[in-house]
Amino acid sequence: MANMFSLSSDGQDPAELPDLNDPLMDHSEGQLFLNEAFKIIIEEVLCKGTDVKQKVCEWKEPEHLALLLDLELRAAGEPQQRLLQRVQDVAKYSIKTSHPRFFNQLFAGVDYHALAGRFLSEALNTNLYTYEVAPVFVLIETEVLRSLRQLVGWTEGDGIFCPGGSTCNMFAMNLARYRLFPEVKSQGLWAVPRLTIFTSAESHYSVKKGAAYLGIGTDNIVVVKVDEGGRLIPEDLEEKIELTKAQGAVPLLVSCTSGTTVRGAFDPLDRIADVCEKHTVWMHVDAAWGGSVLFSQQHRHLMKGVARANSVAWNPHKLLMAGLQCSALLLQDTTNLLKKCHSANATYLFQQDKFYDVNLDVGDKTVQCGRKDDCLKLWLMWKAVGSIGLAERVDKAFNLVRYLVEQMRKREGFHLLWEPEFLNVCFWFIPPSMRGKEGNADYQDRLANVAPVIKERMIKQGTMMVGYQPLGDKVNFFRMIVLSTLVSKEDMDFFLDEIERLGNDL
Amino acid sequence: MANMFSLSSDGQDPAELPDLNDPLMDHSEGQLFLNEAFKIIIEEVLCKGTDVKQKVCEWKEPEHLALLLDLELRAAGEPQQRLLQRVQDVAKYSIKTSHPRFFNQLFAGVDYHALAGRFLSEALNTNLYTYEVAPVFVLIETEVLRSLRQLVGWTEGDGIFCPGGSTCNMFAMNLARYRLFPEVKSQGLWAVPRLTIFTSAESHYSVKKGAAYLGIGTDNIVVVKVDEGGRLIPEDLEEKIELTKAQGAVPLLVSCTSGTTVRGAFDPLDRIADVCEKHTVWMHVDAAWGGSVLFSQQHRHLMKGVARANSVAWNPHKLLMAGLQCSALLLQDTTNLLKKCHSANATYLFQQDKFYDVNLDVGDKTVQCGRKDDCLKLWLMWKAVGSIGLAERVDKAFNLVRYLVEQMRKREGFHLLWEPEFLNVCFWFIPPSMRGKEGNADYQDRLANVAPVIKERMIKQGTMMVGYQPLGDKVNFFRMIVLSTLVSKEDMDFFLDEIERLGNDL
Repeated sequence: MANMFSLSSDGQDPAELPDLNDPLMDHSEGQLFLNEAFKIIIEEVLCKGTDVKQKVCEWKEPEHLALLLDLELRAAGEPQQRLLQRVQDVAKYSIKTSHPRFFNQLFAGVDYHALAGRFLSEALNTNLYTYEVAPVFVLIETEVLRSLRQLVGWTEGDGIFCPGGSTCNMFAMNLARYRLFPEVKSQGLWAVPRLTIFTSAESHYSVKKGAAYLGIGTDNIVVVKVDEGGRLIPEDLEEKIELTKAQGAVPLLVSCTSGTTVRGAFDPLDRIADVCEKHTVWMHVDAAWGGSVLFSQQHRHLMKGVARANSVAWNPHKLLMAGLQCSALLLQDTTNLLKKCHSANATYLFQQDKFYDVNLDVGDKTVQCGRKDDCLKLWLMWKAVGSIGLAERVDKAFNLVRYLVEQMRKREGFHLLWEPEFLNVCFWFIPPSMRGKEGNADYQDRLANVAPVIKERMIKQGTMMVGYQPLGDKVNFFRMIVLSTLVSKEDMDFFLDEIERLGNDL
Repeated sequence: MANMFSLSSDGQDPAELPDLNDPLMDHSEGQLFLNEAFKIIIEEVLCKGTDVKQKVCEWKEPEHLALLLDLELRAAGEPQQRLLQRVQDVAKYSIKTSHPRFFNQLFAGVDYHALAGRFLSEALNTNLYTYEVAPVFVLIETEVLRSLRQLVGWTEGDGIFCPGGSTCNMFAMNLARYRLFPEVKSQGLWAVPRLTIFTSAESHYSVKKGAAYLGIGTDNIVVVKVDEGGRLIPEDLEEKIELTKAQGAVPLLVSCTSGTTVRGAFDPLDRIADVCEKHTVWMHVDAAWGGSVLFSQQHRHLMKGVARANSVAWNPHKLLMAGLQCSALLLQDTTNLLKKCHSANATYLFQQDKFYDVNLDVGDKTVQCGRKDDCLKLWLMWKAVGSIGLAERVDKAFNLVRYLVEQMRKREGFHLLWEPEFLNVCFWFIPPSMRGKEGNADYQDRLANVAPVIKERMIKQGTMMVGYQPLGDKVNFFRMIVLSTLVSKEDMDFFLDEIERLGNDL
C-alpha cells in the first residue's frame, strides 16, 4: 500500500485537461469480462457449489488464505485474466451456502428466479426512495408487502423492507416509542419516562442490540421466562408488566418470537396478544425465521394470533430462499406512523411540488437514505412458483426434519434435546466412549467438547457444515437446520453417518 | 390475492409424505433461465441502458405501470417465457442510472468489474458475520478498510461496511456516546446528561434521523452556521459548544461534511479539528459523497485535516461507481470501541471455543445480524484499475464540471448560484420571458416553477434526468451532478441544449 500512488503523475497542470471523452473503461471489454465472470459463477458456485460430490468448504488458515488471495490494493490495475482468476479464487474459497449439505445457518439453498432478480437489481443499480428513480420497485414493494400482510391476516396496513431482521425489530421499537410519546423524536428519551421491553430469554440478540442502540438500554429489557419448549410464558409476561408499572416504568413493547434462533420455538401469540391488549403494549412478532410457515396450510397454526400483533418482522431470505437480504417489517398501522416516526422531509429528495403523487416516494419511511430493492427477487420468485410452490418448500422442510428425527432415534449416539417444533433439530452426539457414563464427573466437560471437535474436523474436510452452541444449562449441542429444497433423504442419512464418522473416536 | 391458496390441497395426511427427494425445482432449467435473464440484463440494462441514443427513462403513470407489470402474486406459478418477459419489463420501465445522461443522484455509471463482484456476491449468498461462513469476505473487508483508512491518513484503526452512509453516521453517534458514557448501553439515556450534536445547516438529513432514532432527539442537534459557500463556520461551532456546556448539556459529536448533498461543500476540517480537540468532542466526517477525493492528488486537499477526525463515513458507491451499496465507516480508534459498543455476544453465532481466532468473527461490531459483503465489489474494481484508475475517475469528473461551468457561462439563460467546489453544479435556468425581470413581484414564484416543469417534461420525454430543490431563500434550482466516467463533453453540451429546449417557452 505504500506504493498506492507511486505511479501517479503529480503536479499535472489542470489547464492541460486530459481527453474529457475518454470513458476510462472499454465497454465491450467490460461486458466480455462480465460474461466470463458469469460463466465462472455458473460453474463454480451454481454447478459445483450444489453438487454433493463436491466440498461445502475449502478450509484454509486465515494467514494462508490471505496469501492465496493476494489482498493488497495497489496503484496499478491488473490484466483481465488475472482478475478472472480472482473471481475463480473468491468462488473457490468461499463457503458453498447453496450446497445440500450446508446446515449451518438459517439460510441455505438457491432459487434461480430470485437470483435472476438479484442480478437484475444489481445491474439496474438504483435506490428505493422515490418513484422518480425506482418506479418499478416502488410498485413491486407495495404489492409484495400487501401480499405478505395478507398472509398475516391484515387487509390494510403498512410496511417496508429493511437490511435484515435486526433492523426490522429495531424499527418496531422505535415505532412503539413514537406512538406512545411522539415528543421523543424531537426531545429525546430524557423527556419521557423509563421504557421497558419484554422478550423471552431465547429471543434473538437484536432485541438487546436494539435496546442499546435506540438509547433505551439493555437493563430495560425484561426477560420473560420460557416453558420447557422455549416458548414465552404469558403469565410470567403479565406479572412482569405489572411489576414494571408498579416500579414507575412504562411497558413499551413485547417482542415475541416465531421460530427462535436456537430451538425454533413459537411463542403463543394469541395468549400474548391478550396480555398486550389488556395492558396496551405494542406487540411485535419477530418472525424472521418462522414467518414463512404462514404459506403452509399445514403449519400456519404455529403463528395463530399473529393478526393481533402491531408489527411483524419476516425474512423471506431464510426459509423461502429469496437470497440475502430480504427482510420485511409489516405493520397493522393505517395512520402513517412509519413515515411520521422516521421522516426528515429532506427537500432535495422528497420535493412536494413533483408532478406525480409524492406518496409514492416511500424513502422517508425508513431511517436509511439509500435502500436496496430487496422486493424484486421475492416478487419474481413468487411469480415463478406461486404461493403453492412456496408452501411446498415449507412443507418439504418439515417433512425432511421428521424423517431426520425418525432416523436419529434409530441410532444410539444421537440424543435429541427437544422435540422439534420447527426446522431446528438440537441434539448431542454421544461418542461410544461416553455412552452410559452420564454419571461421571467429567461427563459434561467432555460432552461440551464433542461438538467443537467434530465441527473442526467437518470444516477441515469440507464434507458438510452445521452449527453448535450451548443454551442455559445445556452444554454445546448441534443445531441442525433443514430448509433447502435441494436436500434429500440421502443428505439426511449422510449427515448422521458423517457425525458418527467424525465423532466416534472421541 | 383472494385466491392465493385456492389451488392448495388442504387436509393432506402428513403420514403420506411426498417424495422427500423432489428438489421442487429443476436445476438445469433454473440455470437456463438465469442465462436468458443474463442476456436480457446485458442487452437492456448494460447496452441500451448506457447508449445515449436510448432513453434514460420510460415514464408511465403509476396506475398504468402497475397494470403493465401485472403485479399480483397468485397461487400458481408461471411459465419461463412469461417470467423472462417480466425480467424484460422490469428492465424496460426502470430508470437507466448508468446512462451517461442520468445526472439525478449522487450515484451513476457502471463499473463492470464491480458488477461482476456483485453478481458473485449474490450467487455466493452469505452473511459477513463469521470467518466460518465468510472467510474470503472477512479478509477482503479488513484489507479494503485498511486501504481506505490509509487514504484518510491512519496507519491503524477500525471500521465496518454498513448498509448506507446514514447508518455509518448513526454508528458514529453511538460510538461517541458509548465512549463518553459506556453505561448508556445498559442503562439507556436516562442515566446520562443531555447530549448534543453539532452539524451545519446543510449537512445530510441522516444526522436528524440518527438523533431521533438513537433517542437523542432532533432538538438536541445544534445547527451551526455556514459561510457563503455552505461550509460550517468553526467560530460559530465553538460559540455553540460553549453555550451548550453553559446550559448543562454535554457536547457529544460534531458531524462535519465533506461534500454536502446539495452544494457539494467541504467543511474546513482542520479548523474544526482544533475546536473538537479543545473541547474533547468526537469529530465525525460525513464524507459519503466527498470522500473519494482522497484518491486524487489534485483534489484531496479539500479534506485537509481529515486524519484528525475520530470517524469518517465514505460511500464508494457514489463517485467511484462501486455499485449500491458500498458504505464504509472508518475509525481511528484502536481500543475495540466498535465491538464493545455494539456487541451482544450471542453464543449461537460467536462461540468462543472455535478452532480459529475468533477475532475474525467481525459480525458483533455492528448492530445488524446478517450483513452483505459490500467490500468484494470495491476490492475487485480497485484491483482492476488500481488507485491510479480510481484517481482518474475523480479527476475526470472535476474536469467535466469545469467544462460544463465554462459552457454555462457562455449561455444567457444559465445562472450559477455558487462557484462549484465539487461536482454539484447548482443553477437556475431563466427562460427568455423572465430575463431582466428580476424586479417583478412574481419573479421568484415564476422561477420556483421553472425547474419542476422542465423536470416533468424531461422525464416524460426520457432524454435525461437531473434533480432540483430549494435551499434557504433560494427557490427551486437544478443540482447537476457529474460523476460517471461514461459522460463526455457532448453530454455536457446536450445537457445545456436540452434544458433550453425544454424551458425556453416558460
